[in-house]
Amino acid sequence: MLPERIVNTFKHIFPNKKDTFIPLHEPSFQGNEWKYVKECIDSTFVSSVGKFVDDFEKELAKFTGSKFAIATVNGTSALHISLLLAGVKENDEVLIPTLSFIATANSVTYAGAIPHFLDSEESTLGLDTEAIYSYLKEIVVLQSEIPINKKTGKRISAIVPMHTFGHPVNMDGIFKISKDFHITIVEDSAESLGSLYLNKHTGTMGKLGVLSFNGNKTITTGGGGAILTQDEELAKKAKHLTTTAKLSHKWEYTHDQIGYNYRMPNLNAAMGLAQLENLPALLEKKRNLFSIYSQAFSSFIEFKIQKEPENSKSNYWLQTLVLERGFEEQRNLILEATNASGIMTRPSWTLLHKLKPFENSPCMDLSTAESLEKRIINIPSSSNLG
Amino acid sequence: MLPERIVNTFKHIFPNKKDTFIPLHEPSFQGNEWKYVKECIDSTFVSSVGKFVDDFEKELAKFTGSKFAIATVNGTSALHISLLLAGVKENDEVLIPTLSFIATANSVTYAGAIPHFLDSEESTLGLDTEAIYSYLKEIVVLQSEIPINKKTGKRISAIVPMHTFGHPVNMDGIFKISKDFHITIVEDSAESLGSLYLNKHTGTMGKLGVLSFNGNKTITTGGGGAILTQDEELAKKAKHLTTTAKLSHKWEYTHDQIGYNYRMPNLNAAMGLAQLENLPALLEKKRNLFSIYSQAFSSFIEFKIQKEPENSKSNYWLQTLVLERGFEEQRNLILEATNASGIMTRPSWTLLHKLKPFENSPCMDLSTAESLEKRIINIPSSSNLG
Repeated sequence: MLPERIVNTFKHIFPNKKDTFIPLHEPSFQGNEWKYVKECIDSTFVSSVGKFVDDFEKELAKFTGSKFAIATVNGTSALHISLLLAGVKENDEVLIPTLSFIATANSVTYAGAIPHFLDSEESTLGLDTEAIYSYLKEIVVLQSEIPINKKTGKRISAIVPMHTFGHPVNMDGIFKISKDFHITIVEDSAESLGSLYLNKHTGTMGKLGVLSFNGNKTITTGGGGAILTQDEELAKKAKHLTTTAKLSHKWEYTHDQIGYNYRMPNLNAAMGLAQLENLPALLEKKRNLFSIYSQAFSSFIEFKIQKEPENSKSNYWLQTLVLERGFEEQRNLILEATNASGIMTRPSWTLLHKLKPFENSPCMDLSTAESLEKRIINIPSSSNLG
Repeated sequence: MLPERIVNTFKHIFPNKKDTFIPLHEPSFQGNEWKYVKECIDSTFVSSVGKFVDDFEKELAKFTGSKFAIATVNGTSALHISLLLAGVKENDEVLIPTLSFIATANSVTYAGAIPHFLDSEESTLGLDTEAIYSYLKEIVVLQSEIPINKKTGKRISAIVPMHTFGHPVNMDGIFKISKDFHITIVEDSAESLGSLYLNKHTGTMGKLGVLSFNGNKTITTGGGGAILTQDEELAKKAKHLTTTAKLSHKWEYTHDQIGYNYRMPNLNAAMGLAQLENLPALLEKKRNLFSIYSQAFSSFIEFKIQKEPENSKSNYWLQTLVLERGFEEQRNLILEATNASGIMTRPSWTLLHKLKPFENSPCMDLSTAESLEKRIINIPSSSNLG
């Protein structure tokens, strides 16, 4: 039986974990986390001002090769602000994958816009840029260079490629869509810190990009996120909007627009700075874990272990087992068997277009995502397993 | 000269701080902050799940006498969710003081509603409930018990009393407004943790109440807030809305409405739990600081030190010097002289109705707030000064 064979393989891979619960992803605190956090508490600067949040932003920019990085309270808030800065207005449509975490869709609604759902492809688990191009050819009309959805009459203002489980999307395809249809790119790189597309860090190729440091991510700040951009003006605006749009003054409290309380606290940034120092080592272990899984599961014909796309380097955030077509009915059996054995696994998110708040949102044919949803299983991915 | 006399009095009060900068408010970490934060890091549960956030909520409920407390990422997010749960809908009007921090107004706009600005009174620095009652008598018409602003045609769905600098608003006046005009109360207690009105904790008297644990507050979690409510259904909804509206399931990711990523991280709650243990001691010191200031400045006829209202107990979050009418032109001179001497002071926030985003919002006569704005100076208020 397939589920039992999988469970036994896990037990073989991790002989020391036989009686231990193996979580899907746990953080690793092996470096200066405690030292910096203590230093932060000792300084009393634990909140919205402090050296750690500035240092964290600098080091994040350096690591990703981004000109600017603005730390936020979480990835969702970073997405919200990035969409606003990308020019998304009320009643616009924003193109997003249906195969994503709900933050991608929610942030579109926070900006007053409507998510328009796109299909994914097998090779990257991210947006199927060829199919999307053909779809847009059909439904988009350019009016003075503004892309309008012919069916709804609404402007399509942005496309949000999400690098699923850390695997980079086919960005060349996204660039072509952006250029030909005049649609702004906001990269949802919440899952892909450390992932490269043609040697460029994910999140640095769109007008804005977004990172997340939630507890289940490659590195964590407890809760946190960041906005990446190469444009100094946008960086300034991002900082302004995430800090209640307060105008700088020696004592006056004046705000020139509706802003947000989205600044990452210094306490959380202190942890993030230490995590960032260890990131190269964590990434190596996660890559190593992929090799271990690939080898251990190589004889299974019922599924493959998701591999980084060609021309890309993945951070292998969440290791993924993708069942071959025809084995869909095995998914729940495998989830039952592994979780019952203390090996935490989970399926894909429920596709966003199927959720109640988005039932009536526009979408293209989503048959590959529909199929992938039935075949994806995420398996334990913590760096300490590699 | 008044400014110099004030500076000299500060130097006399704090002889050991002669060459030290005295901030407006700094946190105090004298208890288990390090211990709990380290325990949190060691457990690896630093993010949205963990024992500290549950314990923090329980202890917060116990301290305030609230049936339920739901920890959030900051006070602004707590206000946003509270307004939604109070039934505020798009295009409604929400009654708020013009003399408040911008979060009060911003959260109204996040809910899609319009802030409607109210005047304050000298005795509490909070809403002038008598003047407001008369104003509402004029502009409100009840249509099947729904309060409609006759001038704008919009529904007035909530009133948000804010306990300014920790001093409780005249809640009896607010209750009468709520009852007679069918307007729901959401208490903005961001500044008043530890403040009581007739022995009831601020934030527990409205349908929902809000706390803040920003770095400048009486206790801090780095960044954080909480929603208080006495209604179990609302508490459940608050938890649901602040955790992306995800339905509980052993592995599925399904969400039944537009939710928010507003959960306080366990790391921040660990700090909060330790801070809460010290809160009674901190409050005592802050009360003591008020006595010190009252005594030291008792001979000044140009201003008074703001005292807790009758029938109320204030947390004395921010100590406040209120200039008598006629001394308005001294405000900036005092701000200049004190800040130049390393004694941090600041004026009132710019009144909200004067800010660009709210210029066209409805408002009553705001002359007391207008006058207070020119006469308020917040002076150093850290617990360690008391």
